[in-house]
Amino acid sequence: MMKLSDLGEFGLIDRIRKLSLRRNTATLVGIGDDAAALRLKPSSSLLATMDLLIEGIHFDLSYTDYYSLGWKSAAVNLSDIAAMGGTPCFCLTALGIPTAITTEQVLQFYRGAKALLARHKTSIVGGDTCASRRELFISVTALGEARPDAVITRSGARPGDRLFVTNTLGDAAAGLELLRQGVREQGVSGKRSSSRPPTPAERTLLEKHLRPVPRVKEGCLLSDSRCATAMIDISDGLLSDLHHICEQSGVGAVVRAGALPRSRALAKAAQRLSEPFLTYALSGGEDYELLFTVPPNRLRKFGSLRLAATEIGMITEGRSVTVIGEDGKKIPGERKGFDHFAVTAAKRCRR
Amino acid sequence: MMKLSDLGEFGLIDRIRKLSLRRNTATLVGIGDDAAALRLKPSSSLLATMDLLIEGIHFDLSYTDYYSLGWKSAAVNLSDIAAMGGTPCFCLTALGIPTAITTEQVLQFYRGAKALLARHKTSIVGGDTCASRRELFISVTALGEARPDAVITRSGARPGDRLFVTNTLGDAAAGLELLRQGVREQGVSGKRSSSRPPTPAERTLLEKHLRPVPRVKEGCLLSDSRCATAMIDISDGLLSDLHHICEQSGVGAVVRAGALPRSRALAKAAQRLSEPFLTYALSGGEDYELLFTVPPNRLRKFGSLRLAATEIGMITEGRSVTVIGEDGKKIPGERKGFDHFAVTAAKRCRR
Repeated sequence: MMKLSDLGEFGLIDRIRKLSLRRNTATLVGIGDDAAALRLKPSSSLLATMDLLIEGIHFDLSYTDYYSLGWKSAAVNLSDIAAMGGTPCFCLTALGIPTAITTEQVLQFYRGAKALLARHKTSIVGGDTCASRRELFISVTALGEARPDAVITRSGARPGDRLFVTNTLGDAAAGLELLRQGVREQGVSGKRSSSRPPTPAERTLLEKHLRPVPRVKEGCLLSDSRCATAMIDISDGLLSDLHHICEQSGVGAVVRAGALPRSRALAKAAQRLSEPFLTYALSGGEDYELLFTVPPNRLRKFGSLRLAATEIGMITEGRSVTVIGEDGKKIPGERKGFDHFAVTAAKRCRR
Repeated sequence: MMKLSDLGEFGLIDRIRKLSLRRNTATLVGIGDDAAALRLKPSSSLLATMDLLIEGIHFDLSYTDYYSLGWKSAAVNLSDIAAMGGTPCFCLTALGIPTAITTEQVLQFYRGAKALLARHKTSIVGGDTCASRRELFISVTALGEARPDAVITRSGARPGDRLFVTNTLGDAAAGLELLRQGVREQGVSGKRSSSRPPTPAERTLLEKHLRPVPRVKEGCLLSDSRCATAMIDISDGLLSDLHHICEQSGVGAVVRAGALPRSRALAKAAQRLSEPFLTYALSGGEDYELLFTVPPNRLRKFGSLRLAATEIGMITEGRSVTVIGEDGKKIPGERKGFDHFAVTAAKRCRR
């Protein structure tokens, strides 16, 4: 097994460069200089986002393989570009690497990132690598482009707009719970003696947690069609992210619990899980689905897009977010979500 | 003293947003949405760079105040944009924050970053903040712009080109040694009982280490005038960074030791330092001065720019870098510089 100290920093950068090489005409200067030089489409505006993933906070190497970690690190950033209605183009990755990690593990990380990025025609054009004393530290920047008049922010929702979410909710949170129970794919290191392989339905949930798919195509369709007035990606949990839309738009919302979309996989795996579906769906987090609002006069056009999305409620006046049960009664419960500085140490690996 | 757990993640983001607010017409969407939306000058290409700074590897909080840390984190990234001949425009900052750090310390970090960025008309438009278990992790992305035909890479040096460096060399490394000896400004926490305040000359060296100034104006002048064929910023040490130019240009170089520019501050502080000037100048690192090559037929034009720069040698055929002493003899010594994965734990805080 090759250690990073044998290969050296510049040897590693060279390997990453070879792995990442997907030169296109938009990359004037790629990995290996002081900065990347890039070309955007004329008249498009630049989108830029940056996310941090820290071992022991955002991921646990006892149930996450390096390929999935690379995939997910790239995916969560592309999800932010998608949530603005943009097209991702370029990516920069910075890794702080503890000495116990091998060269092969680092390269697996990059292979996973590259696999996700290649699906979206996005290439790694730069970044940084250095030693870390204890934890693996990952920081990714994604750059994208959008027509300036087609950027979808969090602040455009108005009373009467309908609330939609792509695909299904709660799968990633359920997958995380299964991983914590010791459900493991073969080959993934895990020290729990009680680990067992997943059923096919459970595998779907694990994958949703480990290798989320950013909804880039859906975001672009919503942007191009001008159907959405506000949009966010669900990273902290439906209620928490809906609160961001409401706060920034100055509106409230009503969510119909009975309308929340549940996957067949989650229905099948339900008996193994400790919480009811509603908990995963409202507060689970990390689904990386898009939550967006459509005004009544664009519902017909929106329907013609044939997006895999479900209407789950409506934007209202006021500032409060209410969840209504199938019996028409309010479901009590505070806003839940992930606040990095409020959690206790024991709960930190939640996302 | 306010703890981050009292303020919460979103409270902190709000404080950072207020602190960073320097909205200009180029920032369509700033901090607080899924991604920033930015406008570049038409027909300019985008420059993007990313650097990681990890506690215990890149900095030591026993002699670095948070304001300086914010300043330096921004400066090292702007230095990379400068080294491409670009103009910095936007910055994203991601922090992984241990619980022992107070809100005021985090805000001091942002004030320092903002002070440096404001000098260069660059605003913070996004980023990420989250909890870290032990170390403070900092990741900064800088975005800039340059005319596509005026980007200066590392690969354009040709035999016969003259080698120049801006300002003086070795000051930052000497400053770091003084900090390690216990030389401290008042108010900077340091547990060493033997600490003493700096002399005025020493203060200059400390500042060069703690709050480097990226050579943005110089980089732009070199780019606009088309005088430089290759350029890099000196982060790892003159010899190490010169090797990058030589490798990527397929050339060698001769450096005249007697020509290396020394500051008056470094001359004055010499007796307190353990190494001769040449060691700091050749291998010190973190000066963030620009190292660049000028072909003979552009030397006259270059002279008219009146840059604070010194000719220190020449590009040659071959691939080797040679340092010649004042007696005309080769100064032996291997390429030195900073390889993150080759250093021992004890030496890690070198930069």
